[in-house]
Amino acid sequence: MANAVSAGLKKHNKLDLALIYSEKPAVAAGVFTQNRVKAAPVIISKKRLKKNIAQAIIVNSGNANCCLGKKGIFAAQAMADSAAGLLNMESEHVLVASTGTIGKPFPVEKVINAAAGLVKGLSVKKGHDLARAIMTTDVISKEASIRFRIKKAVVTIGAAAKGAGMIHPKLEGSPKYATMLVFITTDVNIKAELLKKSLIDAATETFNTISIDGDMSTNDTVFVLANGLAGNKVIDKTGKSYGLFYKALCAVTSELSRLIVQDGEGATKFIEIKIDGAPGKKDARLIAARLATSNLLKTAFFGEDPNWGRIAAGCGSAGVKFNADRLDIYIGNKKVMEDGVSAGIDRKAIEKIFKKDKIKIRVDLKSGKGSAKYWTSDLSLEYVKINASYST
Amino acid sequence: MANAVSAGLKKHNKLDLALIYSEKPAVAAGVFTQNRVKAAPVIISKKRLKKNIAQAIIVNSGNANCCLGKKGIFAAQAMADSAAGLLNMESEHVLVASTGTIGKPFPVEKVINAAAGLVKGLSVKKGHDLARAIMTTDVISKEASIRFRIKKAVVTIGAAAKGAGMIHPKLEGSPKYATMLVFITTDVNIKAELLKKSLIDAATETFNTISIDGDMSTNDTVFVLANGLAGNKVIDKTGKSYGLFYKALCAVTSELSRLIVQDGEGATKFIEIKIDGAPGKKDARLIAARLATSNLLKTAFFGEDPNWGRIAAGCGSAGVKFNADRLDIYIGNKKVMEDGVSAGIDRKAIEKIFKKDKIKIRVDLKSGKGSAKYWTSDLSLEYVKINASYST
Repeated sequence: MANAVSAGLKKHNKLDLALIYSEKPAVAAGVFTQNRVKAAPVIISKKRLKKNIAQAIIVNSGNANCCLGKKGIFAAQAMADSAAGLLNMESEHVLVASTGTIGKPFPVEKVINAAAGLVKGLSVKKGHDLARAIMTTDVISKEASIRFRIKKAVVTIGAAAKGAGMIHPKLEGSPKYATMLVFITTDVNIKAELLKKSLIDAATETFNTISIDGDMSTNDTVFVLANGLAGNKVIDKTGKSYGLFYKALCAVTSELSRLIVQDGEGATKFIEIKIDGAPGKKDARLIAARLATSNLLKTAFFGEDPNWGRIAAGCGSAGVKFNADRLDIYIGNKKVMEDGVSAGIDRKAIEKIFKKDKIKIRVDLKSGKGSAKYWTSDLSLEYVKINASYST
Repeated sequence: MANAVSAGLKKHNKLDLALIYSEKPAVAAGVFTQNRVKAAPVIISKKRLKKNIAQAIIVNSGNANCCLGKKGIFAAQAMADSAAGLLNMESEHVLVASTGTIGKPFPVEKVINAAAGLVKGLSVKKGHDLARAIMTTDVISKEASIRFRIKKAVVTIGAAAKGAGMIHPKLEGSPKYATMLVFITTDVNIKAELLKKSLIDAATETFNTISIDGDMSTNDTVFVLANGLAGNKVIDKTGKSYGLFYKALCAVTSELSRLIVQDGEGATKFIEIKIDGAPGKKDARLIAARLATSNLLKTAFFGEDPNWGRIAAGCGSAGVKFNADRLDIYIGNKKVMEDGVSAGIDRKAIEKIFKKDKIKIRVDLKSGKGSAKYWTSDLSLEYVKINASYST
């Protein structure tokens, strides 16, 4: 069940406070930003998840509750307490998340005043409102769901996400960087440690391979709650049932990742970067991330200027050792560079590919078996406009 | 002596080919990009500098001579050969540098055709023309010089530089990252190994602590030629005379660094980032570089939006371990954050500082003795416009 209300944290009575509630306590897992500067709700929720149990999530937009010291911690706790009191449950089972401006005093009294209405309006039909309430610079609200079977049990995974800027997640527990908030609920019956493993692995393969502006947030949070009501035999090992659940979870996190990049601040293009033939997977990721954060490349995409030399320069500047004389670069289905040398492709043919909304770039280093992909957006005039006046 | 002509590599008969010539062979040193993808002139010049001798530098703008395979190497050699033949000297003593678009066929015949005029017009008064000929997206030409005494000898250092985009130098031989081209000539009498040491150290402290767009070039090149005509006793150890020379060299490289950042593509602000109290110097540099490349922070500077939370978030995302509860942040002379918590400074006071052309940011981690500084520009609408259509 979910609900969202306007508590007055955002202007113009926009939805800015939301609640997710599971009819019974659920096993829960979370992954958070690796930023050394962590928002208060991240600190609080991380601590609470040590017991792997949660029954509710309270979340606000309009204020990040970050860099506010003890006041911030008290505010995050008070948010949870207000929901817990009204729901007649332990506050420890309420998780908290926030997104918005950093360092602005947090108006906790507005949250407390709005809590009664928030709890009262809980409904199985309010998922869309939740997805809207967590938006900041987002233009579209982001939801994904999937239904599948584990033997006879029908299992559902539903999720909502926000994120359009400060997007370069590096979620803890996973090898590699928005404010990105993602809330996943499922009725699967699963052990806590496997739920955690599935979340870390899915985040590594999906959320951690997207970048909009290369900036890692202080508030990135992904929660998953599994209340077991689907009635499947409990998943307690990485066997077939786990495989089915993990595949479904990845489908959901991948779809949300795609929606986040597509809705990137000012984005006019969706860019898929694929690196093959790197010495190792880590090397492939470093190069993919470097290209995904190259302002020169991202402005070229915006300008539909097929200046592919910027791809070559980006590959070489990632700090990975490889033989530049073996470098192949593809734009769409055209090989523009072979063995480190321009393939002499007609500029017009590449221009045509650059005019599309979705552009695929593939680099083959021919130096090993390491592969990685990254999704990113272009760097547009609108991006600069949005971010030159965010806090005003 | 120097000269510059229009060889037809740039449009509208702009100066695009230049020559620097020393009346006698000079001891020489160079530092180059660490990009794995290196332009042909970088490969050629690096090889030639192994003998630490040079008498001339030939340089073009309008084409980077990069990613062109053997053709590129031949073209770079032919550039040097054409100058050497006309100057009646060994081609091995001619260094080469290029800047412009990557992957575009290099019209070497245009250079050869223009060489005679280039050599014929050599003059001690053409330094300004040289500085203009190496400009690409640069708006101002960049020169610096200094005169000082080593005992009775009067020593001069003169230099010209270009660079406005693809600026995040990481010069080889130095711990840390334009196309940035810098040509330094001096009449000091110095041993080759000390000339090299002084160049590496000066690059580390100046060129390698600037960033405009975070993109490292394939062509970054810094040359220094010292022909000994000042007549000082040869500098053969790191004593007092070396100290005098090194200080003067740093003054020149620092001034050129300042000019490059000031002329950053689309730049409206000059930002100095100072990190103090980091666990180590490397840590301080990592945090300074992260802030200098944060699109969110750089757009906030452009928008004069004092969103200092982005400084805190940037510090925490540099991959450096520190205690976020000890973080102090200063904007100009105002402390906006103390011990990880907003200092509650009036927004208007910070807005006033953000309206200035030069803004100083200081972060004190209070976790050690590591310090570093970085100079950067803001990320403006003009930056995106320039780079969305560079190759067209």
